[in-house]
Amino acid sequence: MWNKKNLLSVDQLSRADIEFILNCAKILEPLSGRGNKLNICKGEILAEIFFEPSTRTEKSFQAAMYTLGGDVITHKNIGSSIEKGETKADTVKIMEQYSDIIAVRDPEELTVKKYADLVNIPLINAGDGSNEHPSQALLDLYTINKEIGKLDDITIVFMADLKYGRAVHSLIKALRKFSSNKIYGISPKGLELTGIETISIEELKKIRPDILYVTRIQRERIPPEERDKFSFRVDSRVLNMLPNNTKVMHVMPRIDEMDPALDNDKRIILFKQARHGLHTRMAIISILMGHEDDVLAIKDIHKKN
Amino acid sequence: MWNKKNLLSVDQLSRADIEFILNCAKILEPLSGRGNKLNICKGEILAEIFFEPSTRTEKSFQAAMYTLGGDVITHKNIGSSIEKGETKADTVKIMEQYSDIIAVRDPEELTVKKYADLVNIPLINAGDGSNEHPSQALLDLYTINKEIGKLDDITIVFMADLKYGRAVHSLIKALRKFSSNKIYGISPKGLELTGIETISIEELKKIRPDILYVTRIQRERIPPEERDKFSFRVDSRVLNMLPNNTKVMHVMPRIDEMDPALDNDKRIILFKQARHGLHTRMAIISILMGHEDDVLAIKDIHKKN
Amino acid sequence: MWNKKNLLSVDQLSRADIEFILNCAKILEPLSGRGNKLNICKGEILAEIFFEPSTRTEKSFQAAMYTLGGDVITHKNIGSSIEKGETKADTVKIMEQYSDIIAVRDPEELTVKKYADLVNIPLINAGDGSNEHPSQALLDLYTINKEIGKLDDITIVFMADLKYGRAVHSLIKALRKFSSNKIYGISPKGLELTGIETISIEELKKIRPDILYVTRIQRERIPPEERDKFSFRVDSRVLNMLPNNTKVMHVMPRIDEMDPALDNDKRIILFKQARHGLHTRMAIISILMGHEDDVLAIKDIHKKN
Repeated sequence: MWNKKNLLSVDQLSRADIEFILNCAKILEPLSGRGNKLNICKGEILAEIFFEPSTRTEKSFQAAMYTLGGDVITHKNIGSSIEKGETKADTVKIMEQYSDIIAVRDPEELTVKKYADLVNIPLINAGDGSNEHPSQALLDLYTINKEIGKLDDITIVFMADLKYGRAVHSLIKALRKFSSNKIYGISPKGLELTGIETISIEELKKIRPDILYVTRIQRERIPPEERDKFSFRVDSRVLNMLPNNTKVMHVMPRIDEMDPALDNDKRIILFKQARHGLHTRMAIISILMGHEDDVLAIKDIHKKN
Repeated sequence: MWNKKNLLSVDQLSRADIEFILNCAKILEPLSGRGNKLNICKGEILAEIFFEPSTRTEKSFQAAMYTLGGDVITHKNIGSSIEKGETKADTVKIMEQYSDIIAVRDPEELTVKKYADLVNIPLINAGDGSNEHPSQALLDLYTINKEIGKLDDITIVFMADLKYGRAVHSLIKALRKFSSNKIYGISPKGLELTGIETISIEELKKIRPDILYVTRIQRERIPPEERDKFSFRVDSRVLNMLPNNTKVMHVMPRIDEMDPALDNDKRIILFKQARHGLHTRMAIISILMGHEDDVLAIKDIHKKN
Repeated sequence: MWNKKNLLSVDQLSRADIEFILNCAKILEPLSGRGNKLNICKGEILAEIFFEPSTRTEKSFQAAMYTLGGDVITHKNIGSSIEKGETKADTVKIMEQYSDIIAVRDPEELTVKKYADLVNIPLINAGDGSNEHPSQALLDLYTINKEIGKLDDITIVFMADLKYGRAVHSLIKALRKFSSNKIYGISPKGLELTGIETISIEELKKIRPDILYVTRIQRERIPPEERDKFSFRVDSRVLNMLPNNTKVMHVMPRIDEMDPALDNDKRIILFKQARHGLHTRMAIISILMGHEDDVLAIKDIHKKN
């Protein structure tokens, strides 16, 4: 059972836990940004620790905490004591002293679990190497549920680096907690994931997925000599194989694997998906900080205060 | 007519628009900083995006938003997904998802206009290459009006890189919306601007400008082989040519073109000018966020709340 | 007498000043973080300026200001106009325009004093080269007083780079304002401090210190050719020489000079010490901003508001 103290892996979460988080996110969505400032986390400080670059995760956690009424302190390697040789574990322990909840990203796998054992406050895995990125999986589920209307009986094709993609790993684990979901992969050779049926791009026409989930090739995690072997791209040819009600998602950043000229196609929902990161992370922070009752209570009230 | 949705160029603004912005800034000035916290932008988030370094613009927009009661998220290239190869347009679109208004600086000209077309929230050009920097022009006008008491019939000499200086470009455009302003340039050969009469330093004595406006040579925008050709410096010799009531402004940063030993001369108002950036940017944000009525209403009220 | 306008050096502070600061910190400690948000600095902005990397000082000042109800703008060299060649003095003057109080760290000695003369708002020395770090000394005193129950008649051993360690310099000065304190040093040859008796590690058994205060060797301040001469390490052998009630402190970051495997030993209080940085810096900011009466008044009131 989920202890509601950490969010380290999708493995911690039952189907009911996921549904609860998504329900909180749904309550919070209309209150996020655009002039709303909640008091749910007033006086609480989120410490963000990024041992690896981030844009979406970092900024959406910040915006989430501000909207909840809290404050944020952000650690990055540059300009910090990491440059003087401080260990990452010490940095995490130090940030704990000045904050009430921590979100940490680390390029190494499984380190984040160790950090959680070191600290006495809630800790969120904001991505640990190629391993997991559970808050991303939750925002993806939130997006799928909102766009498709359900989380069971979904057909989803990952056009992706399935091997090194932590967001994909977390999402696949999460989808398997629901029933009758059909999961396929379109992956360059060498980047497949055991247990996921690989299909060709042409088979998209037959499979008619609810979701086409694209990722970039994470070049920084692939041995340099192999980097140039891999490529794929969602262009109009691929888009034409998809039904009208398929939604195309992407964990972002995208490099060459999706043509921005197609962004106006209503099937492409990358930026909506990113925005749901704000709502989902507001829910995660609220729950981990012990404020789920406050979230449930605001269901009816609160406009601009 | 100004749409009050973006601030991309001084070209958007009529004389009346400028006067309105400066009037709002004047209302806000006594309420800025020093223990005042307004509610005008409570619950709203400013996204700052700096694809190029900044000190003044970045920090004064931050302080402006905090004083208005809002929050700020700041994107810089370092430690972000730009390092993974994300396009700048995608970064802007992503930051839009987590914010209510955007200020963006880009080393390339005319890109900021494109970003404004991509997003659905207000966007401020915080400097696009050598092109424009309209909020700088507005704070300069605010400073001139406050110090000289008028914006018509001003004599101003730019001792400056007129060719590559975006702040100068924006300010000259703005001054031409008022009447009878006389504009001269003291520029190294090759850095002049067509349509501005070039004078020698000695002619300052005869021209008796209201304003001497200095800029640094923007070495990063000049071809490397030409960089060392250009130099000028405001020293006591130059200062002695100026009347007692002339004011010396500088867009900052200054490198060698002004002697800090002269800072106590009351004609030199660099830091006051910088501080007016706070007031002017509070006005710009308020208006773009649709809160101009709130600004006009606080005219009489509000001390420390 | 302390002007309560700046905190540049421990030299400014009398014993009574120090006791007053620590008393304010004691009042603020139970109100710091964990859901408390004070109004003491509402509407006030702290400008942090770090010309040299920091983790603890930067983040604890941020958390302190947020908890006091204020906002923070942070300047670092990277991505700023320092990259364009701006002087540090100009950067400090500019940051003054957007803020109400400044904390500044500089790798050069004695520069911070000059900055204080340049600005018209309170300024805190957050470390100037090898010279001083007074807010660190105050948090160390707060920690010693809390853990040992007194600031007189203390026996303290610095196992440290006494020569280049600014935190040590400030703390020794501060301890000498109290009575009967016995101060010893365990330093590699060449890193001793005149006037401090040097002892061997084995003598710890005899001296039975109240405090063993460890620092890292500040390699960046030692000539490169000499860097590898110096080393020491607190391991279980050293720990076994200490009485049960000795406390081991460290200014952090630690590199190799303390074994993290010993962190569970209750004598090791590094992270508590770091957390007291939050409380002490809340006190310092409050006093310098002229809010000491507000601090004294909240003694009884204020839980979560």
